[in-house]
Amino acid sequence: MKILILGGDGYLGWPTAMHLSKAGHDVLVVDNYLRRELCRETSGEPLFDVPNLADRAILWKETSGVSIQVAIGDLNDWSFVSEVFGSFQPNALIHYAEQPAAPYSMLNRRAAALTLHNNLGVTFNVIYGVREFCPECHIVKLGTMGEYGTPNIDIEEGWLEIEHKGRKDRFLFPRQAGSLYHTTKVMDTDMLWFYVRMWGLRVTDLMQGPVYGLETEETGGDVRLYSFLNYDEIFGTVVNRFSVQAVAGYPLTVYGRGGQTRGYLNIKDTLNCIRLAVENPANLGELRVFNQFTETFSVLELAEKVQKVGNALGLNVQVDSIPNPRKEMEEHYYNPVHTGLIDLGLQPNFLTDDVVAGILETVIQFKDRIDKRKFVKHITWK
Amino acid sequence: MKILILGGDGYLGWPTAMHLSKAGHDVLVVDNYLRRELCRETSGEPLFDVPNLADRAILWKETSGVSIQVAIGDLNDWSFVSEVFGSFQPNALIHYAEQPAAPYSMLNRRAAALTLHNNLGVTFNVIYGVREFCPECHIVKLGTMGEYGTPNIDIEEGWLEIEHKGRKDRFLFPRQAGSLYHTTKVMDTDMLWFYVRMWGLRVTDLMQGPVYGLETEETGGDVRLYSFLNYDEIFGTVVNRFSVQAVAGYPLTVYGRGGQTRGYLNIKDTLNCIRLAVENPANLGELRVFNQFTETFSVLELAEKVQKVGNALGLNVQVDSIPNPRKEMEEHYYNPVHTGLIDLGLQPNFLTDDVVAGILETVIQFKDRIDKRKFVKHITWK
Repeated sequence: MKILILGGDGYLGWPTAMHLSKAGHDVLVVDNYLRRELCRETSGEPLFDVPNLADRAILWKETSGVSIQVAIGDLNDWSFVSEVFGSFQPNALIHYAEQPAAPYSMLNRRAAALTLHNNLGVTFNVIYGVREFCPECHIVKLGTMGEYGTPNIDIEEGWLEIEHKGRKDRFLFPRQAGSLYHTTKVMDTDMLWFYVRMWGLRVTDLMQGPVYGLETEETGGDVRLYSFLNYDEIFGTVVNRFSVQAVAGYPLTVYGRGGQTRGYLNIKDTLNCIRLAVENPANLGELRVFNQFTETFSVLELAEKVQKVGNALGLNVQVDSIPNPRKEMEEHYYNPVHTGLIDLGLQPNFLTDDVVAGILETVIQFKDRIDKRKFVKHITWK
Repeated sequence: MKILILGGDGYLGWPTAMHLSKAGHDVLVVDNYLRRELCRETSGEPLFDVPNLADRAILWKETSGVSIQVAIGDLNDWSFVSEVFGSFQPNALIHYAEQPAAPYSMLNRRAAALTLHNNLGVTFNVIYGVREFCPECHIVKLGTMGEYGTPNIDIEEGWLEIEHKGRKDRFLFPRQAGSLYHTTKVMDTDMLWFYVRMWGLRVTDLMQGPVYGLETEETGGDVRLYSFLNYDEIFGTVVNRFSVQAVAGYPLTVYGRGGQTRGYLNIKDTLNCIRLAVENPANLGELRVFNQFTETFSVLELAEKVQKVGNALGLNVQVDSIPNPRKEMEEHYYNPVHTGLIDLGLQPNFLTDDVVAGILETVIQFKDRIDKRKFVKHITWK
């Protein structure tokens, strides 16, 4: 299958490219290095340097014998989109090409505007690229569990049948997100759902929880093939950030009471979910939604897990509650369904002590590079 | 009260400016003449020429003795927004500043991109303008009944309490719109609702149905003060378009079976609704939603009403069904609530035979200017 990976330089983009190319697919990755630029802008560089995409593709070819094609350009620029879509003619595309950090979207007006225009502009161009060049192409869109927020009812998988005054209809599950970044994902879904109904596009919307880890089947322990490990408040996801804090001897920064509960997954499971979605496409005219995570934890539970495993490795891990910079509920009901991907064959890799230890051991290799000033940047939602 | 009217040159913007200034408010209208540009681009000029905003303000001052301030510029340009918001410091703003035509948003990629970037970009800048310069300013946002689409359940006024598996929560009423234009309004609401929750903005979202008519309390029959009368397929709203077709002896263009039912209102009621919303503001931290229409009609009912009144005036009015260029249900359930504005004191002006005759009589004055080629432009949703 010819698969286009948009945002192929990202935390998940590159591992996905290796995974799908290894599985025998013909992969073209596209990126404009926006994330690297924003990390530098906010002084949030990852723990270790990661080669550029062209160099990573060479390295991957040497290591695995498998090729990945690379195209560098801005997907907000239609002339680039038409070039890429027109010449590659993908059967499926994975759309990761968005500014991915909630705190970045709350940093200031300029960062918020960039998030809005980049994320919606790219999704719009993707829709028109498919429409004009490959109308049967399966769009696999990365959404986020954050689109749902934390409602007081069970979160279904994308859709909800509502009965009201004796009549019924089926709707997208109501979404109310907790950051502008997450809100742009809600808006992406609105836009995709509209064009699915109008033009019969085929779309899978993967409502993903926060991802952790670096090691995948393809990296084989070779750190040169690892993805970014961001550990700052902006681009670092929570498990990765806690792991670096633990190694640095910096108290784990739990926001407020720490009862904020989310669905998490191992990076290996992200890759399996993406592959399962691609290899079992949605129908034309269908917006298929999966909730993509394997288990739920509160932030405090995660901190205590990292603390326990870290201490067993001889680290002295403290857990600290800091004033919550976000506007969110610190205790809430949370019961999301996540059966769709399991039904497609997903076999979860859970967050065991061994997995936490593996992340900590990787970080320990780069201990000298940790810059503690990056942990907290005092970005607030207020 | 100091009131900023964004999109003050539009079909509703200018009548609103006259109405609120006459009611004693201090009004500044802002526009970049985008609508005029798009009408020319699509060869959809209105039935008669309308002076520019500066000239209209002079005319209004001569006629009524009341001043309206004018600022010309692009609200997608932050430097202009900060200038206007910073110097005027409004107590309330009416946000009409969007590309308003559903068919234009479906015309081609460029028109769709303009709709997306203009509408969301302006709403975003309005939010930041209020945040930075006048955080207590009441944002009165024009939404549309089209955001709801045509669900199989009763449409409540903006919100819906959902009971699911024995638990309850309150959500924005689920929205699924029928054009990209309408979808940008859904996305506007997503974005406003997010910032209302985060920053405590005060917002009223007016879910308005299609508006008809030209005559208001302020025009006093003076056509120089009338707003645009567009009668083409793109910018003409249905009652106005049917009226011009009736006068031209062109069969009224009903799309398909004509069972498409919507909530309509007289332009006089739009002005009253806006004034009532402004003079009874939402609370800080509240997104208040009103469904803004006074009665529902199917398209066929409207055509038959225009036909009956037209024939009584001596016109020979035919009604024709043409293949539906849109993707929409031609027969459907439709039962929207609309009590909020009535509770605030709205006294509806219904679509009586006299009102239809009034519109037809205005059009008859300009009969020689009607260009029949403008009626149908063959824009399809496919």
